[in-house]
Amino acid sequence: MVKRAEGALLQSISINRQGSHGLIIQICTHLREFILSGSLKAGGRLPSTRTLANELNVARTTIVECFERLAAEGLIETRVGAGTFVSQAFKNERLAVPAQKPMISEKSARLAQSMTSASSRFVPRLVHEQRPFTTATPAYDAFPMAQWVRLSSKHWREARKDILGYPEPYGHEVLRKAIADHLRVNRGIKCDWQQIFIVAGAQQAFQLIATTLIDPGDKVWIGARNSFVVHGADLVPVRVDESGLDVADALAKAPEFRLAFVTPSHQQPLGVNMSLERRMALLTAAQDQGAWIIEDDWDGEFCFSGLPLPTLQSMDQAGRVIYVGSFSKSLFPSLRLGFILAPPALMQHFQTSLDAFLPGVPTAIQAIVSDFIVEGHFATHIRRMRKAYHERYQTLYAGVQAHLSDYLDIMPTSTGMHTVAFLKQGLNAEEVAKRAAERGLTLTPIGRFCIVPYERQGFALGFSGFSTAQIDAAITVLKDVCADTTAAREAEPA
Amino acid sequence: MVKRAEGALLQSISINRQGSHGLIIQICTHLREFILSGSLKAGGRLPSTRTLANELNVARTTIVECFERLAAEGLIETRVGAGTFVSQAFKNERLAVPAQKPMISEKSARLAQSMTSASSRFVPRLVHEQRPFTTATPAYDAFPMAQWVRLSSKHWREARKDILGYPEPYGHEVLRKAIADHLRVNRGIKCDWQQIFIVAGAQQAFQLIATTLIDPGDKVWIGARNSFVVHGADLVPVRVDESGLDVADALAKAPEFRLAFVTPSHQQPLGVNMSLERRMALLTAAQDQGAWIIEDDWDGEFCFSGLPLPTLQSMDQAGRVIYVGSFSKSLFPSLRLGFILAPPALMQHFQTSLDAFLPGVPTAIQAIVSDFIVEGHFATHIRRMRKAYHERYQTLYAGVQAHLSDYLDIMPTSTGMHTVAFLKQGLNAEEVAKRAAERGLTLTPIGRFCIVPYERQGFALGFSGFSTAQIDAAITVLKDVCADTTAAREAEPA
Repeated sequence: MVKRAEGALLQSISINRQGSHGLIIQICTHLREFILSGSLKAGGRLPSTRTLANELNVARTTIVECFERLAAEGLIETRVGAGTFVSQAFKNERLAVPAQKPMISEKSARLAQSMTSASSRFVPRLVHEQRPFTTATPAYDAFPMAQWVRLSSKHWREARKDILGYPEPYGHEVLRKAIADHLRVNRGIKCDWQQIFIVAGAQQAFQLIATTLIDPGDKVWIGARNSFVVHGADLVPVRVDESGLDVADALAKAPEFRLAFVTPSHQQPLGVNMSLERRMALLTAAQDQGAWIIEDDWDGEFCFSGLPLPTLQSMDQAGRVIYVGSFSKSLFPSLRLGFILAPPALMQHFQTSLDAFLPGVPTAIQAIVSDFIVEGHFATHIRRMRKAYHERYQTLYAGVQAHLSDYLDIMPTSTGMHTVAFLKQGLNAEEVAKRAAERGLTLTPIGRFCIVPYERQGFALGFSGFSTAQIDAAITVLKDVCADTTAAREAEPA
Repeated sequence: MVKRAEGALLQSISINRQGSHGLIIQICTHLREFILSGSLKAGGRLPSTRTLANELNVARTTIVECFERLAAEGLIETRVGAGTFVSQAFKNERLAVPAQKPMISEKSARLAQSMTSASSRFVPRLVHEQRPFTTATPAYDAFPMAQWVRLSSKHWREARKDILGYPEPYGHEVLRKAIADHLRVNRGIKCDWQQIFIVAGAQQAFQLIATTLIDPGDKVWIGARNSFVVHGADLVPVRVDESGLDVADALAKAPEFRLAFVTPSHQQPLGVNMSLERRMALLTAAQDQGAWIIEDDWDGEFCFSGLPLPTLQSMDQAGRVIYVGSFSKSLFPSLRLGFILAPPALMQHFQTSLDAFLPGVPTAIQAIVSDFIVEGHFATHIRRMRKAYHERYQTLYAGVQAHLSDYLDIMPTSTGMHTVAFLKQGLNAEEVAKRAAERGLTLTPIGRFCIVPYERQGFALGFSGFSTAQIDAAITVLKDVCADTTAAREAEPA
């Protein structure tokens, strides 16, 4: 017989009668939990289906179905003529243990050593609020959504198997060809479409590269990138000046490097181009050392003045450059679409990794982007954005010169989506950023991009995502913020 | 002066005049390559713009623009009154080196040690051709595309910033809530929506888990999974019988295990459910050892007989189970959409990883799937597919019994998208599969799922993706194949 306490337990089952097909599931869930937690003891008899149905005010067939279900799961046993009992299996002490141990806590969860040591060194994620002067924000308002929706509908409707089935592990062939063509025409890059591997954004590209190439302790020049940290890479902070990465400094610090991570078309965060001499020196160093170079061409498309600068990849005669591209800036970030242009020596190895892990991007997305490129919308969009971003940059530059020259020294740029402004009067970047945030502005201190503290205080100011009116208004607010910060500092006791 | 050879070199520039805005890019690309490769020597003078324009039969302004461009890149220098010269920078011997070294080859590319040792142990990717009896193939023909297209158009048109901007790193909140609700109602799982992390498919889930938890040498029960191999895990092949993973065998082989990888609702490839005793024993072992369990619930939705079996996660009272779900089977594979249901102790650690790497699924896709679930289309689709797959399974089972009983011993199943058939008469599975492939059938030998050779020869036969007519026709072909294989073997000299 079920003891009094257990009878009460069964009556305590609360049922939500609003749910559609929920009764059986709800009752089963309760009974299962009572059994697994030991509240109903092994071998204990359950009430008859009739009794339980009456107590719970449900149809008897509902209870019959619940019992059949729990019996199928092995939790209860029905003996003809005797009734229904909690399975004897729970008498086994080993089986009863789980219910009695407490839930394991976050602190006591042991992690992989590489993760434990890496996570404290992760670069914090930049927050991408849609307000001035957030960096790396495309002009969402100018996106040609009509074209996009047309292509989207087309690809969902057409060719079910192609679009719905397992994706090609290295990427949709049409897209790989479209990207190779685009790179040839617009970035001076010669490559075979089979060198293109589609990945879910640049971060996934870096992970794939790190998995393939990085052993613990390997020296990586610059590269304040989390993917390398978790693979145990030894990040070597290298000086960056107005010519880009200082290769001599890097060679002095870590001559036996394994990988160099550079953004030659627009060095983060200073926004400088890497000079020809530095590019050649870097290529030479990589060859001499048998090292690899990741060229992160994150905003190379957006050079205001005519054609973009040539890529490092197009200068590489030895096959040492791994070019990583992304559509986060040229289309939009939530696409999660990027690609690797692999040097021939690494093609097979990336294939092996992708075959093993099958990451990948929804095929429909790849098909839409393919058409977007092939039909010419992509090139048109880039051209329009280049013009819009130039205009937005000019508004920012002129506005800061006119109204903020007491506080900020703004750097010119000829490319990209942000520029840098250095603080005058000894103002502290984090302090100004904090005050600005309270007034609805996002300022990104240069220091957040750097592994070692940068010698000057300043911000990366994004301009691409905001109208000229928004930028003008934000400059007015920023002037107040700078004045307030200065006043507050002067008010402090010396 | 440019030497004669160099003059010929310049004349050798071939131009494709069909391209739209290609002339300047084409000429620049050629000149850049001549300079970088050393074919045009440092300090050498280039022909005048007029001469070159004549020789190439292009407008002089085109050449002027090319020269300005190359000068901006630092490749050439114009001296007033003297002409245009290849940059003296290339006299620097260090800079000249890259051109002379050969392209590095695939063989000489050194990889990460973990990758080198892992890649030989990667499980080969299963090929998913859309023909009988490919496994794990949803019924594409039955997908409710009209609903899908409607939701897709809606989400692209609406709410630009939300859909286009940087994705939420742990996944779209609406989708995380929809999945938590679905799991509660349909899988007997109680969880907080914040325990749900959206990832690009189950493989990415396994990678994230491996990164977070696995050190080289850690013992992993079963888990012939590539993500763990590359993290240096020591895979322990464990016996699987009609009750699922043999926990006693696993404990004998590797008592100090770190992770167990199981598919309790449908063990690959045998299609068996894990018994209650085994489930409890596994949970106990994980607790005793402080180990983790990955529950890969890859086709748990498709139980033909009423409700699916409860998940291991819903029996876990200690927070040791990491439940991994995927929409590849319940919707379609090219979505690249899956999720992790994290135990509380691992939530913060997965957050750290996802913040660092920002993988993620296109937000539009997540928004579509959210609505698909919330509006009830998902539950309806699952119900319809459960019925359709049951019918297809019955056709397969009856057909094999009726026509192939001389060659095949087909196992019953009450769930999933495939079943197993064992070969009789000592036939070799790989041999039959090879002959079947020539006749347009895909058979997947059981051995391909296993780390150690399986004792019996047989196949996993997928039925979910094919109409009953296709299945009937394929059985006829398979009968011929089996007969031919038997005849060929008997014809061999003893």
